Amino acid sequence: MLPRVLLCGRFLGEIEYVKDEVKEIFHGIAEIVHLVSESRSHFLSSFGPDGPYEGTVALYRRNTSSEVIGKFDAPLIHALADISMVRWIAQSGGGYDEIDVQACKERGIMVSNTPGANEDATATATLYLMLSCLRHFSMAERSLRSGTWKTPYNAAQTHDVTGRTLGILGLGGIGLRFAHLARAFPMRIIYFSRKKAESAPNWCEYVSSADILSLHVPLNQSTTGPCNGGSVLLNTSRGRIVDQEAIIRALEDGHLSSVGLDVYPDEPRVDPRLLTFPRCTLLPHVGGESAESWRTRELQALGNLKAFVLGGVGEDIVPELKTEIGNSTTI
Amino acid sequence: MLPRVLLCGRFLGEIEYVKDEVKEIFHGIAEIVHLVSESRSHFLSSFGPDGPYEGTVALYRRNTSSEVIGKFDAPLIHALADISMVRWIAQSGGGYDEIDVQACKERGIMVSNTPGANEDATATATLYLMLSCLRHFSMAERSLRSGTWKTPYNAAQTHDVTGRTLGILGLGGIGLRFAHLARAFPMRIIYFSRKKAESAPNWCEYVSSADILSLHVPLNQSTTGPCNGGSVLLNTSRGRIVDQEAIIRALEDGHLSSVGLDVYPDEPRVDPRLLTFPRCTLLPHVGGESAESWRTRELQALGNLKAFVLGGVGEDIVPELKTEIGNSTTI
Repeated sequence: MLPRVLLCGRFLGEIEYVKDEVKEIFHGIAEIVHLVSESRSHFLSSFGPDGPYEGTVALYRRNTSSEVIGKFDAPLIHALADISMVRWIAQSGGGYDEIDVQACKERGIMVSNTPGANEDATATATLYLMLSCLRHFSMAERSLRSGTWKTPYNAAQTHDVTGRTLGILGLGGIGLRFAHLARAFPMRIIYFSRKKAESAPNWCEYVSSADILSLHVPLNQSTTGPCNGGSVLLNTSRGRIVDQEAIIRALEDGHLSSVGLDVYPDEPRVDPRLLTFPRCTLLPHVGGESAESWRTRELQALGNLKAFVLGGVGEDIVPELKTEIGNSTTI
Repeated sequence: MLPRVLLCGRFLGEIEYVKDEVKEIFHGIAEIVHLVSESRSHFLSSFGPDGPYEGTVALYRRNTSSEVIGKFDAPLIHALADISMVRWIAQSGGGYDEIDVQACKERGIMVSNTPGANEDATATATLYLMLSCLRHFSMAERSLRSGTWKTPYNAAQTHDVTGRTLGILGLGGIGLRFAHLARAFPMRIIYFSRKKAESAPNWCEYVSSADILSLHVPLNQSTTGPCNGGSVLLNTSRGRIVDQEAIIRALEDGHLSSVGLDVYPDEPRVDPRLLTFPRCTLLPHVGGESAESWRTRELQALGNLKAFVLGGVGEDIVPELKTEIGNSTTI
């Protein structure tokens, strides 16, 4: 009897983009079972004898599963470890904040994510936000759609991208990809981080982190592009890494001329004050989303699962658990 | 007594971005006079003895002057030639369709425009429209602003830019600039034209114009990017060069999945049917507008005027009049 892998999301396990490949990936290796539970108690009890998830050794997980069984918090992880043979959770996506990694560590469950899969999509969204914030395109379209053509758009307040200085906070995969796209104009590109990034190309100038303070907003990680009459702040990473009250104050006092946001501290809630600044461009966390990006993520997460089922150790283990590899349970 | 140059637009002659430089440019060369007329008859009579425009030899012109004195049509040109010493019209902007060049030719008046001044701004707007049409960013923002977060946005219908094929119809200054920006992803870039463009870089593949027909919309000049489930059409040049009825039919039958438009046949009127396709991104003809782009245009048009006043021949004469240079009247 083959071990089972559970596709843990809504809508047939949320394998939307690789429906055809998923059977092929696990052919002869594992039996695929889908999430059928509508509650946490049903979910957990289904790993027992004759339950639909009996024999499951690994999970593919999307955040949408939270809607029916809740987040993978400590109680769920501990119950799962007590009742099941699950030793690997392959998260589809870069973020795994809905999984209690510490609890997984205590119970010998490994967690992988899909780093890099949405770099291109997210860098593209950041480029879009930059263009819109400097040129007020989003505002211009709203004025057209409201029947007022280009009122109150004012070209004198808009700016070309070419030749401006772009400061990138965090030159990881997405930041570096965005740097390459922005370089085409060209822009002067500087990056802020605690230490020099080894992956930085020579046209990417390193600036020590103290200079971040000149932006007058307390930031941890974001991308900013200085422009006349205030700066532009872009955030396509996570809403909580920037102080939203500081953003709103900076928009009010003119230190920021515009912000381009894809993420918010309390999604899907958007602070209504943000809607009152007409030059801001506000996306509903779609930066990493595109058909190609989701497909890459799904294939990557399923590949992580397959490697685990075949060899006992998958790929893309999250940093907190990397040292645990030697201790991971094989099946 | 110095010759006069008339700044012919609304709002102090519409020198908005080079207010300080304009006096310097003509210092010791010409006296600057501003448009004060509120009607065509006042405008024309003001070139007479003791009129505010007496002694004017050249005009700087912006389209906004039409709002008070009308377009520079044949009657206006002939009346101007009868009553004044004007021998040069320096249009601020690339388009000069509001000036009757044939009438100017008949009366020995030269016309210059400002080619190239808005290439960067317009190529940037085209890039923005491409990103929005492939990723449905504009629709996503509208859903956020209407309070529904990312409904009805559907990631499965969106596409990454990287690796797609971009077809550019018309590889002039704007098309080539757009090609360079799109190349950063990279994209495969092909261009359609009657003959191979000498300025085309070697990564820009030439396709004979017959292939345009595969788009199933009658186009003369625009840029298109094929994508799954229909093509994307972008137009940032002029509204009348594409058959708008064909666009609407193609959106209805799915041959076009989306369009990104900055220009319309009957601006500022926008066909309300265009507003019913949620994936379309519609800008109110702001593609060439930015503070930097306007400044470049103004400086270029004023430079053309200065060259005429100084040497009898300005720069950037429009193509229809290029052969007239030898015949132009000097002052």
